[in-house]
Amino acid sequence: MKKIHSMDELFLHGLKDLYDAEQQLVKALPDVAKHATSSELKSAFNSHLKQTKNHVKRLEQCFEILGEKPTSTKCKAMAGLIAEGEELMSHIEKGQILDAALIGAAQKVEHYEITSYGTIAEWAKNLNQTEIKNLLGATLEEERETDEKLSNLACDGINKSAREAA
Amino acid sequence: MKKIHSMDELFLHGLKDLYDAEQQLVKALPDVAKHATSSELKSAFNSHLKQTKNHVKRLEQCFEILGEKPTSTKCKAMAGLIAEGEELMSHIEKGQILDAALIGAAQKVEHYEITSYGTIAEWAKNLNQTEIKNLLGATLEEERETDEKLSNLACDGINKSAREAA
Repeated sequence: MKKIHSMDELFLHGLKDLYDAEQQLVKALPDVAKHATSSELKSAFNSHLKQTKNHVKRLEQCFEILGEKPTSTKCKAMAGLIAEGEELMSHIEKGQILDAALIGAAQKVEHYEITSYGTIAEWAKNLNQTEIKNLLGATLEEERETDEKLSNLACDGINKSAREAA
Repeated sequence: MKKIHSMDELFLHGLKDLYDAEQQLVKALPDVAKHATSSELKSAFNSHLKQTKNHVKRLEQCFEILGEKPTSTKCKAMAGLIAEGEELMSHIEKGQILDAALIGAAQKVEHYEITSYGTIAEWAKNLNQTEIKNLLGATLEEERETDEKLSNLACDGINKSAREAA
């Protein structure tokens, strides 16, 4: 990581952090989907994988608008979030309890992204980067929708099935 | 981490993860407050430190209700979030730009906690642990308020000052 002296540099750092975070997620999601038992949950993870690939492309568009080459800064927080998800997958047998655990882990990832996109979209607005702000805002909306979908899956049955599975 | 075979065990694991996360935060927040320039931001971090110490105590009450000794499971996600904050503090001079960066980093931490408490409060409800659900819900509310306070500080002036500081 380079020294940061301006909001433009801080903003670019935020984009690089998210570029790495989204790429880590693209690699992690297929295995998470494989570990899901509920067909609705599996399908939610697979459809979020498609969205995530598109989020990577949107970030590349942001770099292009800024005249910068897309580069990554290692996102340690996403690495930690993914490591926690992997730990759950290796300590819980496939089934309803793991489904409940995976929803919790995935919502942590979604919230990481919601707050990160929320912050840099606000910085983009502040720096009068309207086109970038709109691209980031579109992704932010999809992250919020995914988080809500996961909450609904948990509350509409997966948590109850998990309790009864013991 | 032990193997998990029931929602009760998953719930206990979630409590242990948060118990570690909150303790990591108690250690990290004094240094973050020292690095803040805005007096309002410094005071927000200091008052959140007091709240966080109380969150640790509330978690201890939850363990007590369950008849369990308070123990921790290493929270890798919080470790990653704190490492990112430390990286920002070592790469940005103290001033308005660092203040904007610290708000972003702190909101990532708040969102980690919002989603974690949201998930385990829902699990507590599902397991008919009403007293624990209420304790977790009280902390969840304070995390949401802190997140909103930080958003307001950013939007009401810190982001603008940071842009003009370059």
